[in-house]
Amino acid sequence: MSEIIATYQLSSNLTNLEKRAEGIALGLTVGSWTNLPSLKQEQLKKHKGRVHSINENGEVKIAYPAVNFSPDIPAILTTVFGKLSLDGKIKLVDLEFSNSLKKHFPGPRFGIEGIRKLTNVYDRPLLMSIFKGVIGRGMNELEDQLRLQALGGVDLVKDDEILFENELTPFDERIIRGKQILEEVYSESGKRTVYAVNLTGKTFELKEKAIRAKELGADALLFNVFTYGLDVLQELREDSNINLPIMAHPSYSGAVVASQEYGVSYGLLLGKLLRYVGADLSLFPSPYGSVAIPKKDALAISHELTQEDESMKKAFPVPSAGIHPGLVPLLFNDFGIESVINAGGGIHGHPRGAHGGGIAFHQAISATIKGESLEEAASNHLELAEALQIWGSVEVINK
Amino acid sequence: MSEIIATYQLSSNLTNLEKRAEGIALGLTVGSWTNLPSLKQEQLKKHKGRVHSINENGEVKIAYPAVNFSPDIPAILTTVFGKLSLDGKIKLVDLEFSNSLKKHFPGPRFGIEGIRKLTNVYDRPLLMSIFKGVIGRGMNELEDQLRLQALGGVDLVKDDEILFENELTPFDERIIRGKQILEEVYSESGKRTVYAVNLTGKTFELKEKAIRAKELGADALLFNVFTYGLDVLQELREDSNINLPIMAHPSYSGAVVASQEYGVSYGLLLGKLLRYVGADLSLFPSPYGSVAIPKKDALAISHELTQEDESMKKAFPVPSAGIHPGLVPLLFNDFGIESVINAGGGIHGHPRGAHGGGIAFHQAISATIKGESLEEAASNHLELAEALQIWGSVEVINK
Repeated sequence: MSEIIATYQLSSNLTNLEKRAEGIALGLTVGSWTNLPSLKQEQLKKHKGRVHSINENGEVKIAYPAVNFSPDIPAILTTVFGKLSLDGKIKLVDLEFSNSLKKHFPGPRFGIEGIRKLTNVYDRPLLMSIFKGVIGRGMNELEDQLRLQALGGVDLVKDDEILFENELTPFDERIIRGKQILEEVYSESGKRTVYAVNLTGKTFELKEKAIRAKELGADALLFNVFTYGLDVLQELREDSNINLPIMAHPSYSGAVVASQEYGVSYGLLLGKLLRYVGADLSLFPSPYGSVAIPKKDALAISHELTQEDESMKKAFPVPSAGIHPGLVPLLFNDFGIESVINAGGGIHGHPRGAHGGGIAFHQAISATIKGESLEEAASNHLELAEALQIWGSVEVINK
Repeated sequence: MSEIIATYQLSSNLTNLEKRAEGIALGLTVGSWTNLPSLKQEQLKKHKGRVHSINENGEVKIAYPAVNFSPDIPAILTTVFGKLSLDGKIKLVDLEFSNSLKKHFPGPRFGIEGIRKLTNVYDRPLLMSIFKGVIGRGMNELEDQLRLQALGGVDLVKDDEILFENELTPFDERIIRGKQILEEVYSESGKRTVYAVNLTGKTFELKEKAIRAKELGADALLFNVFTYGLDVLQELREDSNINLPIMAHPSYSGAVVASQEYGVSYGLLLGKLLRYVGADLSLFPSPYGSVAIPKKDALAISHELTQEDESMKKAFPVPSAGIHPGLVPLLFNDFGIESVINAGGGIHGHPRGAHGGGIAFHQAISATIKGESLEEAASNHLELAEALQIWGSVEVINK
């Protein structure tokens, strides 16, 4: 039977777990059971929720028949964590979709493989950088930033997520000028950089705007999905007229994932669900940087995005925030080759600017892939040596 | 200057609050400041975030210039609580919109006044009831439930929020048959009941579906807004072809509001923002029932929905979950006449069924308005007496 199994972690009222679990399974499906006549029970059987398992530490799994809901994220979230989200200390830890239900979710259009093709990089983690301090600045400053980042050899550049429609650097112009600059760099250096432009504005205008972005030559979209809704991302993914990689920004997701007792787990929201609805890349705070999350949560996100699943493509994990070249061995150790190394200050703050910053990162990545230490590599790579002088490096303990 | 002032409650790293606050104000706007040349500072002045106030208990207010973002909820949430939501123990407590910014938010189309007109009730809290146990049931059972609820004299009936598009009770048929039944009851009893049908499905099909609902004669829409996005509700509100009252269900909102240390406050999310984007009614757990929230939070929601604001209409607070006739004096004391008393089990579980349940509630409401105690009223009102026997009553302490 097609169903979804939800795993919850309860951390209050653990004394009567079986009754509580049964109450959830019935309350969110057929309402009542034991007092129903047997004919009615027969009729409702396929709709009835089922307690799948109970663990005395408060972990409860409930199976919900898929016949009860339409196969979309809003219906699923309402069923498994609608009013339940308001009912005491309860966290939604995981959702397991049966195969027939999973078919309604497209997964990434490009995925890791597609992004590798776009960037022509197959043998290492990708390198991404972020525009910095762009609010209130004009096109010239953005163009300079973009050029320097691309000259440093980054594979991807993303807009600042707080850059919205504005007179100084309008969406269309960012795409058009960005494309020109990246073509110029490409013809100089042979290196192609992909630029993700921030798709913002009113919900019902997003598709049209994304199609226009595609027509104007955009490479990829950045999207603050959690201030809109997971289903919005899915519909952008499913529209074949858009046909652009989608980079999901974790903006506002902390409101849902950060508590240990409430909300949704990091792995489910920023990993599994983002992949199911079709994000090609998922950004999240790394466990090391300026804005850090617990390591087990960062690894859970990465695992959900990249584990084998024959029904959909893999998505790139992008551990972010406070990343500098000295962290590359640690990132590589924890997130492996199928990840994106993403830096803002760690690129722009290099003494030789974003150009030098990108080079320093590439030197760190090459050394790490070869099994060389950063200190060794720095001895004959100036930009890396300068970066390590500023930011230092972090030893990999559990290598 | 048009701006938004965000109030945060921090509950970690309180030692260097001023630096932290300054870091937020700059980090989410112009990026840096003191090291900028004065010409640059002049250029960026109108974009710079400002620390409005700091309280040593960890309450910090930051003002963000509206010129930095487009006037929509996704841009605002990304600016004020985007990556910040992931940065330690921080809760978004309030947002104050300057008047020029507020103009971009429509508020309720109908509001309390409009809903009173529709239901023709002016002198008491409204009474609402909920379909119960409808999953897996056919149209006949829904029709019977609707008839009995309407005969009991409830002013509003809402779909169960977990009822989605399904073969047994399709959306269109619920509207068409619901309308017929409510017309029949009206011609018998002279009482008009408003039925809110659950608007569900894929995001980009919602407008069309809502317009169809209007054309089929629907009275009102129920909407699981938090599984979609606040901006989706706003765009449904703004579309003059839809033109139906919108009842916002708090489904999934617990993931955002329930923690004291993370996420968004009850009052802001389920009160102020729902009203700004245009909900006519906001459901939330009462402080008393089966699923309960702290009383101060329930009162904060109610206050945000109903306080005077010359730029927009008031919305109805609907404290819900586990409500029975014995709670009416308490509800009236706490939420006043401008509220909706909403019951599921407390209506359907009456010994005379939903019909008797509605009557018992009306008896409790009439008595309370007159200043009579429920016990007094029960002495010559059979249905109320029966209800009190089952559920008891709760004394109002702080009357």
